[in-house]
Amino acid sequence: MTNSFGNIYRLTSFGESHGAAVGGVIDGLPAGRIVSLENIRKALARRAPGGSPMVSSRREPERLHILSGLMALDVDAAESALLPREQLQEHLCPLAEDSDVAVTLGTPVGFYVENADTRPGAYDNLRNLYRPNHADFTYAVKYGVRDWRGGGRSSGRETVSRVVGGAFACELLTKRGVEVDVALTQVGNAIDPRQFAAEIERARAEGDSLGGIVSVRISQLPAGIGEPTFGKLQQQLASAMLSIGGVHGFEYGDGFTLGAMRGSEAADCMSPEGFLSNHCGGILGGISTGQDISFRVVFKPTPSIARHLPTINTRGEHANVLTTGRHDPCIALRGAEVVRAMTWMVLLDMWMIDTAHHLM
Amino acid sequence: MTNSFGNIYRLTSFGESHGAAVGGVIDGLPAGRIVSLENIRKALARRAPGGSPMVSSRREPERLHILSGLMALDVDAAESALLPREQLQEHLCPLAEDSDVAVTLGTPVGFYVENADTRPGAYDNLRNLYRPNHADFTYAVKYGVRDWRGGGRSSGRETVSRVVGGAFACELLTKRGVEVDVALTQVGNAIDPRQFAAEIERARAEGDSLGGIVSVRISQLPAGIGEPTFGKLQQQLASAMLSIGGVHGFEYGDGFTLGAMRGSEAADCMSPEGFLSNHCGGILGGISTGQDISFRVVFKPTPSIARHLPTINTRGEHANVLTTGRHDPCIALRGAEVVRAMTWMVLLDMWMIDTAHHLM
Amino acid sequence: MTNSFGNIYRLTSFGESHGAAVGGVIDGLPAGRIVSLENIRKALARRAPGGSPMVSSRREPERLHILSGLMALDVDAAESALLPREQLQEHLCPLAEDSDVAVTLGTPVGFYVENADTRPGAYDNLRNLYRPNHADFTYAVKYGVRDWRGGGRSSGRETVSRVVGGAFACELLTKRGVEVDVALTQVGNAIDPRQFAAEIERARAEGDSLGGIVSVRISQLPAGIGEPTFGKLQQQLASAMLSIGGVHGFEYGDGFTLGAMRGSEAADCMSPEGFLSNHCGGILGGISTGQDISFRVVFKPTPSIARHLPTINTRGEHANVLTTGRHDPCIALRGAEVVRAMTWMVLLDMWMIDTAHHLM
Amino acid sequence: MTNSFGNIYRLTSFGESHGAAVGGVIDGLPAGRIVSLENIRKALARRAPGGSPMVSSRREPERLHILSGLMALDVDAAESALLPREQLQEHLCPLAEDSDVAVTLGTPVGFYVENADTRPGAYDNLRNLYRPNHADFTYAVKYGVRDWRGGGRSSGRETVSRVVGGAFACELLTKRGVEVDVALTQVGNAIDPRQFAAEIERARAEGDSLGGIVSVRISQLPAGIGEPTFGKLQQQLASAMLSIGGVHGFEYGDGFTLGAMRGSEAADCMSPEGFLSNHCGGILGGISTGQDISFRVVFKPTPSIARHLPTINTRGEHANVLTTGRHDPCIALRGAEVVRAMTWMVLLDMWMIDTAHHLM
Repeated sequence: MTNSFGNIYRLTSFGESHGAAVGGVIDGLPAGRIVSLENIRKALARRAPGGSPMVSSRREPERLHILSGLMALDVDAAESALLPREQLQEHLCPLAEDSDVAVTLGTPVGFYVENADTRPGAYDNLRNLYRPNHADFTYAVKYGVRDWRGGGRSSGRETVSRVVGGAFACELLTKRGVEVDVALTQVGNAIDPRQFAAEIERARAEGDSLGGIVSVRISQLPAGIGEPTFGKLQQQLASAMLSIGGVHGFEYGDGFTLGAMRGSEAADCMSPEGFLSNHCGGILGGISTGQDISFRVVFKPTPSIARHLPTINTRGEHANVLTTGRHDPCIALRGAEVVRAMTWMVLLDMWMIDTAHHLM
Repeated sequence: MTNSFGNIYRLTSFGESHGAAVGGVIDGLPAGRIVSLENIRKALARRAPGGSPMVSSRREPERLHILSGLMALDVDAAESALLPREQLQEHLCPLAEDSDVAVTLGTPVGFYVENADTRPGAYDNLRNLYRPNHADFTYAVKYGVRDWRGGGRSSGRETVSRVVGGAFACELLTKRGVEVDVALTQVGNAIDPRQFAAEIERARAEGDSLGGIVSVRISQLPAGIGEPTFGKLQQQLASAMLSIGGVHGFEYGDGFTLGAMRGSEAADCMSPEGFLSNHCGGILGGISTGQDISFRVVFKPTPSIARHLPTINTRGEHANVLTTGRHDPCIALRGAEVVRAMTWMVLLDMWMIDTAHHLM
Repeated sequence: MTNSFGNIYRLTSFGESHGAAVGGVIDGLPAGRIVSLENIRKALARRAPGGSPMVSSRREPERLHILSGLMALDVDAAESALLPREQLQEHLCPLAEDSDVAVTLGTPVGFYVENADTRPGAYDNLRNLYRPNHADFTYAVKYGVRDWRGGGRSSGRETVSRVVGGAFACELLTKRGVEVDVALTQVGNAIDPRQFAAEIERARAEGDSLGGIVSVRISQLPAGIGEPTFGKLQQQLASAMLSIGGVHGFEYGDGFTLGAMRGSEAADCMSPEGFLSNHCGGILGGISTGQDISFRVVFKPTPSIARHLPTINTRGEHANVLTTGRHDPCIALRGAEVVRAMTWMVLLDMWMIDTAHHLM
Repeated sequence: MTNSFGNIYRLTSFGESHGAAVGGVIDGLPAGRIVSLENIRKALARRAPGGSPMVSSRREPERLHILSGLMALDVDAAESALLPREQLQEHLCPLAEDSDVAVTLGTPVGFYVENADTRPGAYDNLRNLYRPNHADFTYAVKYGVRDWRGGGRSSGRETVSRVVGGAFACELLTKRGVEVDVALTQVGNAIDPRQFAAEIERARAEGDSLGGIVSVRISQLPAGIGEPTFGKLQQQLASAMLSIGGVHGFEYGDGFTLGAMRGSEAADCMSPEGFLSNHCGGILGGISTGQDISFRVVFKPTPSIARHLPTINTRGEHANVLTTGRHDPCIALRGAEVVRAMTWMVLLDMWMIDTAHHLM
């Protein structure tokens, strides 16, 4: 159960960082929807390493292989964005590697992305070493064995699958007008985005890394999405966010500042024109109010830094680890794309659960 | 699926604030364990209203009715805490209302607590009114109908079931040495516990309410608990906490301060004697490290305050609401007991999931 | 997870035969639906023992206590079956013990039925004895402890909860025109219903019991219900039926006779007017065809018989057991009502899952 | 949720018959177990078409691509079957395409098998036609669109994933001594296995197909596996079997014959040496007794036959369909391998659930 996320719209994920591939299965995608594979590849590209000095220099083409669940449209149909759903069957054709537009079949979408730039041998010294603030030690305790290459299953490379899962959900929900804006709003001590590049460059130059904060705003989600008690919208979002490696906190609406506030300050009063404020972050009783939903997520600094750090090996002896590799100096930067993907998945899943109750 | 929490150890909850009762079903409780019903009643009493001027004056006897899943021990056995498990069957007898000690049968525990102090009619004016920052509006949008009395299903009274679910988990885990310490560490602007009572009294006198922060420390949990990817321990804890009404944020370890930290500051280095620090809050890769686990939860100020607040009625017209009732001026105070209960449930559930993989 | 049934419409069940009560929680019941509690009580009465010489003489009033999830309608509204959903809120009032009509709130329905006729002491001799073909032995091996009184959790009394869960589903689906016909079609060697009473009476007189077969026909279910691969409609029905104590088999459509048939005989050809036959039992690829769905369920003979049967006690020694109690000579008779209830639950759950995919 | 099977040991499946590939993700496989990939390939080969005149002539190499979750052992270790688990980490090396032995990492196993022999264009005439007793019509009603090539998702080709999931479970459970014997016990009217080939050949020559029955015996499963109420072992087995395309019935122990039996005939009495008979099929109260577990599964005749069958097209007009393709004249033959795989998966999943409750 632990590698699946979601209830009705559900991603099941697999893959180690330096194994053959990462990938997954998307179940619950409604049938007969036209999706842009081009958009999905763009989402993967935004998450991909290698694009700038601010991120890891690992170079991955991130070529998405889709094995099932979709068909393409023939030439006539692909040109017409307005094809009625009942005519789709006439225009289906097999999916090609470079198809730009696809139709969902209602069946599960199996996919994978190869791990191309894996550099065999580069991690030999880590087979028996526990890197501080990585999952090496805990995986060793829990499983006895582990793939030591680049963090194995605990690597951020696993998020490739999440981005694909989120991008499909995005395709459906943007057609309904929903918007998800994701912004990096803090990098180390900098809160002015114009400062971020310099802050990251300085940390990298010093062989260090930085934490950061990602802020999300969801617009145009109708009121009524989210379920009471143990299916609250903020609960699903928090679960989604804390499942991302390196995330240490989640808050929505006025968040932790509410601890120091009074009820009279935090009151979101109403008028016939709507809410007069939004301290609650667009969610009341676990259900969307129709106002914008806002939340924030904190990422810890990348644990892999170019400093000698004392640690132990698998025999429990003193050791030193120095990471001179291809790592992001600030995982929040690329993490923002993963936050976005998880948000889309939660929204579609919760909307489908709500829909189920509107039986006929 | 939305009124159940947990995977193997699972609570299914029911009940409205002013309906007949609140209660639930606990599934997955291992068999043949001796539990103290006295401890469980004490946990309910700690959550109960009416105990002090700092909390709601609603007076609930909180009498726990257990309908299944447990039997009592006869007199001889009840005196011996050390009865071997294979002799329990000989000493079972029917559970009585006042049994102090019980044995789990491995079958589901059905239970309820009556809503005694319900004051019929007291909420008549709220049938068609949406109280600010309550779930009245969102329930109306989502369901069309709702029990308007005291918040109905969205009331904090629902947490009675959680406290029972947590108290059973606590019974099992404390025998294995696990400890959960829960403390109120901020009330409004006060962070010194000696100031809390005065802070709350002042807010109440002014017809206002206060937010607060609850901090948790889990000790003696073995390393290896928690599952990768979508079953991370911090994810389950965040999901548990954000399911509590009024909670607006969760952070573990150094939490949101990690956003401003550098990797060299946040590194939890290791020596043969163990970890040298604990910025990660006792969890790496979603799995417990064996160090203490620490996290913090923020509660918003009670939305029910003795002030005239502008709102609308169910016809969308201007209205005013003034809450002159029995409400906690600071829900974080009693919320701490709910935080504790949810923590215990997560720990037992995750431990059982880990155990499943140690097949023979 | 093991005491819950269903995915979106889900029953969680609890209760031992001679404990305080049996009951459950129904989650996922859509909001704003008017249900007849009178009908639900009638379903319970049909399942109840004590009604005829053909069934157990245990006398249970089967008084249903509903603790949450429903409200009643005031006098004006209760008289009008045609009240539009948007006016329901105006007419809600608290549920009374004898309310005939109720409105669903969308929140979980907690309920219980007391075990009234429990005869303390009547089962003392069974505390340390394993009755043949009962679950006494397997519960002892699995749990170490067990409630020996009347089978404890493994008793057919547990089906009270299923009947309630099914009756609510029935209320919603009959309004959509769906019909479920359940018939006892074999009792021992008799297949003519006019023979059944005599067959049962003869077995009882001889201190023996009889197996039986229950046949079900579902009409007016629309085409398209059921999910591929692991959510097939026949799979859910089979799972539902085999979860009933004493059921040893399930077949749909032409069932086991298909093993001896040829494809040309079994073909359900189609014409513009529809299907020309229904060997497939109204399900193709796990999805309803729109034709009637038919299936059959076999119940074993009641294991409790008035004969001396050799067995062992909990110390593994020779023993004899003679059941002189209040048992059904043919559990298929009352089992038919449980088959009906499980059928309704499956249909509503699967319909809701299908509905979820029709997002907007 | 509908393309996943199992609770803790869980297969998520994807793939259409003539899409790029079929495959899946296996979650919950315990870590540090040595598995024979050779055995897993053999299981796939047993299910594969093309091996004899009795099965489909589609020729699939069934090359298994494993993308994650496993590593291989270096030369020294691969020679030693007795390597202690704590030494495995020292001997891990990357998995190669032809590795014979692998070690489970505790992480999900992603895999796929290409659809090699897909013959583009061969199914063009079926794009708008509903073949009798296939899922063409129901998929069209449910989804609007469907992959018409060879049945798409509803094809038996989907069972490749099940066979892989079952083969891994088999690897773990055979080491614990569990045995699963699967036999084809009826083909059309023949019940003598020596007659089966002739029976199938005759049907094929006549352009027809045959139903069949598969019988299973599970040995050496310990007592105590299976969960009460809605997690009964027979329920999980029935659910598994009825999820297989073409299966129309399931019975265990004496099955449908119990309908005509008396309690005195069906009684499985006990002596200090054990059970004296096994009418109950090795399961009581949903829990294994420790005796052999027996059940039977019926497969319908292959619906694809070389006869002109009247049907309709997607516009609802009269049409004729004649299948002159590569189909099994008796799907029960290869279906037996799928029955075996599903059995192994159920057993491992249920054993892991039981294990979870033996917390410390």
